Amino acid sequence: MLTTDKNSFIHFDDGIVSALTKIVGKNNIITDLEGIYAYSFDCAHIPFDKNYPKVVVIPQNTQQVSEILKIANKRRIPVIARGAGSNHAGGCNPVKGGIIIHFSQMNKILEINNQDLTCKVQPGVVVGDLQRAVKGIGLFFPPDPSNLAVSTIGGGIALCSGGPRAFKYGTFKDYVLDLEVVLADGTIIRTGSQTVKNVTGYNLTQLIVGSEGTLGIVTEATLRLIPAPETTNVMLAYFNTVENAVNAVSGIINNHLTPSVIDLIDKKTVQTIEHFYPNGLLCDKEAVLLIEIDGDSASVELQEKKIIQICTEYGAEKIDCAQDELQKQKIWTARRSAFGACAQLAPNVITEDVVVPRSKIAELTKGILDISKKYNLITMVMGHIGDGNIHPNFALDLRDKKQKNNFEKAKAELFKLAASLGGTLSGEHGIGCQKANFLPLVIDKTTLNLMIQIKKVFDPNYILNPEKML
Amino acid sequence: MLTTDKNSFIHFDDGIVSALTKIVGKNNIITDLEGIYAYSFDCAHIPFDKNYPKVVVIPQNTQQVSEILKIANKRRIPVIARGAGSNHAGGCNPVKGGIIIHFSQMNKILEINNQDLTCKVQPGVVVGDLQRAVKGIGLFFPPDPSNLAVSTIGGGIALCSGGPRAFKYGTFKDYVLDLEVVLADGTIIRTGSQTVKNVTGYNLTQLIVGSEGTLGIVTEATLRLIPAPETTNVMLAYFNTVENAVNAVSGIINNHLTPSVIDLIDKKTVQTIEHFYPNGLLCDKEAVLLIEIDGDSASVELQEKKIIQICTEYGAEKIDCAQDELQKQKIWTARRSAFGACAQLAPNVITEDVVVPRSKIAELTKGILDISKKYNLITMVMGHIGDGNIHPNFALDLRDKKQKNNFEKAKAELFKLAASLGGTLSGEHGIGCQKANFLPLVIDKTTLNLMIQIKKVFDPNYILNPEKML
Repeated sequence: MLTTDKNSFIHFDDGIVSALTKIVGKNNIITDLEGIYAYSFDCAHIPFDKNYPKVVVIPQNTQQVSEILKIANKRRIPVIARGAGSNHAGGCNPVKGGIIIHFSQMNKILEINNQDLTCKVQPGVVVGDLQRAVKGIGLFFPPDPSNLAVSTIGGGIALCSGGPRAFKYGTFKDYVLDLEVVLADGTIIRTGSQTVKNVTGYNLTQLIVGSEGTLGIVTEATLRLIPAPETTNVMLAYFNTVENAVNAVSGIINNHLTPSVIDLIDKKTVQTIEHFYPNGLLCDKEAVLLIEIDGDSASVELQEKKIIQICTEYGAEKIDCAQDELQKQKIWTARRSAFGACAQLAPNVITEDVVVPRSKIAELTKGILDISKKYNLITMVMGHIGDGNIHPNFALDLRDKKQKNNFEKAKAELFKLAASLGGTLSGEHGIGCQKANFLPLVIDKTTLNLMIQIKKVFDPNYILNPEKML
Repeated sequence: MLTTDKNSFIHFDDGIVSALTKIVGKNNIITDLEGIYAYSFDCAHIPFDKNYPKVVVIPQNTQQVSEILKIANKRRIPVIARGAGSNHAGGCNPVKGGIIIHFSQMNKILEINNQDLTCKVQPGVVVGDLQRAVKGIGLFFPPDPSNLAVSTIGGGIALCSGGPRAFKYGTFKDYVLDLEVVLADGTIIRTGSQTVKNVTGYNLTQLIVGSEGTLGIVTEATLRLIPAPETTNVMLAYFNTVENAVNAVSGIINNHLTPSVIDLIDKKTVQTIEHFYPNGLLCDKEAVLLIEIDGDSASVELQEKKIIQICTEYGAEKIDCAQDELQKQKIWTARRSAFGACAQLAPNVITEDVVVPRSKIAELTKGILDISKKYNLITMVMGHIGDGNIHPNFALDLRDKKQKNNFEKAKAELFKLAASLGGTLSGEHGIGCQKANFLPLVIDKTTLNLMIQIKKVFDPNYILNPEKML
C-alpha cells in the first residue's frame, strides 16, 4: 500500500485507512495499486501517472460520507467525489492524491412524486436510468448529457450539465430544488426546499450546482420533473454554408418556434460518422442542423411544416424528416455516434466545450477551423447551436509531443476566441483542472477573489477537490 | 435636515450630503422631511415612524452608484436600493436609516437582441414596459409579478419574483444571465456572461438573484428572452371543493399538459371581486381555477378541449372559456382586481406568500381558513396552485391593536403550517424584515451560518440593506 507521496497534503498513514475501513466496511474500500489506478483519471486527457488517490471508499449512506469527511478534514486529506468519471475537464482527477468517494452504491431513486412533479435521488443514479423511470409514469427529466447512459446525477449537478435539449428545457440547474450536502467538516445541510418556488435565504442550491465538488459533497437531490411531451419528431436539414444554417436557426426562432433540440453538425463530422457508421447522411454539405420538436401531435405536425418551410427559405439543400420511430432512432443514433466515430481517427479524441452568444456561432465555427488548420489538427465541429454551445472534437495522438503542443496552443487560442466573441470557457463540461488557468480570460480579479472567499467559507482547509476550477 | 438619529450606524453629517450631492447633482438628492417620508416605507405594513432614510439619491449611471457606495462603506452608512417600492416583505424599508438609492432614472432598456434572444436593461426598467417592448418584436419575457405595471427589473431580481406564469415559465432566476453589480466597497463586477449556458466558476448570478440587495447592488442585467407563444386562451373552472380543484390540476398535469397559468381563487375572493368589480363570476362555488394555455393555434385548441374534459371529469360545475380577446381581458381583469377588491374591505390588506409541495395545497388552504377563523380575520385565499404558492390576503385594521396582535399570531401559525407541510416562507415575495425572524423554521443553524459568512464576504461592514433576510 502507498503510504506517502509528494502529492498528498499530509502523511497518509495506515491509521487513516483503518478508520475509513471501519466506516464503510472492508468490501467498500480500495487501496491496492490496480484498484486505485482505475480512479487516477477521468474522461479528460491528463497525464495521470502521478495522480493516484491513496484510497477509494464506496459509502452506503450520507452518515458514512459525513464520517469520512470528518476524518479527512481533521487530517487535511483531499477528498474527491466521483460518479461515473465521465468528466471531460479533469474534474474528478485526484491531482493531490487523497480519498476518492465513489458513489456507485448510493444509486437509488428514493421517490418519484407524480403529484408534486419531483423526485428524490442519490448522487450515483445514472441520468438515463432516471429518465426511463420517470418516463414510465408520463414524466420527463429533460437534462440529457450525451453520456447519459453512464453519467450520474451527482456529476450532472457538479457540472451543471446540459445536452441537446437545453435549448428548450435548460440544464441541470433548472431542475434542482434541494440538495443534501455534506460540508468539508462533515456537517450535513439542506440547501433548498421541496417546493418549486423558494426565495428563503440565499440560493445555496445554485451555488452548489456547478461547483464541481469544491464546496461540499452532494448526497441527495430533490429534482423537479415536468409532464412528458406527448410526442416528438426529428429532422436533418442540410446547408451549403454554416452561415445559412445559423440564419435558418434565427428564422425558426423569429417565427415563434422553440424546438427541443437545434444541433449543428459540420461536414467533417458527418463524413466521419458515415465512414465508420453508415446511416445514409449526406456527406457533401457544409452544415447539418438536427432539429427535434415536441409537444402534442397537432403542434408537432404544425411545427414540422413551418420548420421545413423556414429551412427551405434559408437555403436548405435537403431536409430529411423522420417518418416513423425507426427513422427517429436512426437519426439520433447517427448523432450520438459522432464521438465514437471521431475516436476512430486517432488514439485520442478531446472534446472541447465553448459557448458564445448565438449570433457569433458562424464566426466561432470559422475561427475553430482556422485555428485547426494553423496547428494542423483534425477537428470536427458540432454542438448545440441553439444555445451557442459548440463542442469541437480534436482527434490526435497525445503521445506525439508536437501534436500535443500544437493542441495546447490551439486550445489557448480557442478560449481566447470564445472570450473575444463575448462567450465563455464552458457551457456544460465545467472547468476542472484543465481550464482553471484560463479563468482570468472571462472572470475579473475581484469576482475571482469573491469565489475564492466563498470557497474558504465552505472549505477552510481546502480539502474538497483541490486544484479544480479556481 | 435630519442630522443624526439612533437608527443610523454613525453620525451622519452635512459633509456626507455634500459629497453625495457632488456625485449625483443637486436635482437628484432628497433630504427634506416630506421627501424622505415617501421613502420610509414600502408595500409591507411596517410601522415607519422611526424608519426615515437620511437621504435619497437618484443616480444616473453605475459609476455614480460606485462612488456613493465608496462613501457609505467608508463611513459605515446603510444603503438600500429601491425600485418601485412595491415590496410586500419590507425589503426596502430603511430600518437603520441611511441612504436610499432610487433607480427611477436608471430605467433604460439598453439593448434587445433578437438573434441572441437577450436584452440588457437597467434596474429601474418597469417589468411591464420590458414585456411590451420585447413583445413588439415577437419575443417574450415571462416573469409577470402581479404588480408588473409598476414593479422594476431590479426589484424582480432582488426578490426572484414570479407571478402566475411561473408554472410553465419559471421565475426571474430562470431569465438572468449576467449582472453588473456594485459591491459594498464600490467595486464593479460582472457575475455571469452573455451566453445562455455558462459553467465557468461559481454561480454568483444566482447568489445575487433573490438576495434582496444584501450582497451587492445590481446596476445592469442581461436577461434571457424566449420566442413569444403564437396565441393564448384562458378559462375559469368552478369547483364545489378545493380538493376537487386540486385533483383537477393533478389530472391536467398527468395528462401531459402544461398550461402557462394554473391559479386558484377561493370563494371569498370571488365574492369580494364580484361585490366591488362585477365581472359575472359565479359566487357560490368553493374554488375557481384560472387556467391559461399558450402555444400555436392548433395546440391551444387541443389543450383547451382536453382541459375542459379533465376538469369536467374531476367535478367542475361550470367552465367558462374565453371566446375572444375581450373575454380574455375580462377574466384577467377580474383576477387582477382581487387585491384592489380586498383592499376595500378594511383599511389594510396584507398579502402573505407561502409555498408548499403542490400535493399539500388542499391541506394548506384548509389550514389557512382554520387559522383565520381562530383569530377572527377576514381572509381571502388565492395563488399559483400549479407551483404550490398561495397568497392569503388578510383584510384588517392595523390601528386596532387586537386585530394587529391576532394577525401576528395568525402569521406565525401560517409559517409553521407551511413549514410542517414541507413548504417554506416565501415563493416570490422575499423575506425582507418581516419574515427574518422566522427563517429558523425552515433553515437549519449551520446553513444560516453559511449564509451569514457569505454576507460577510460580500459586505464586511454590513451596510447593504441591514436587518433584511438574515
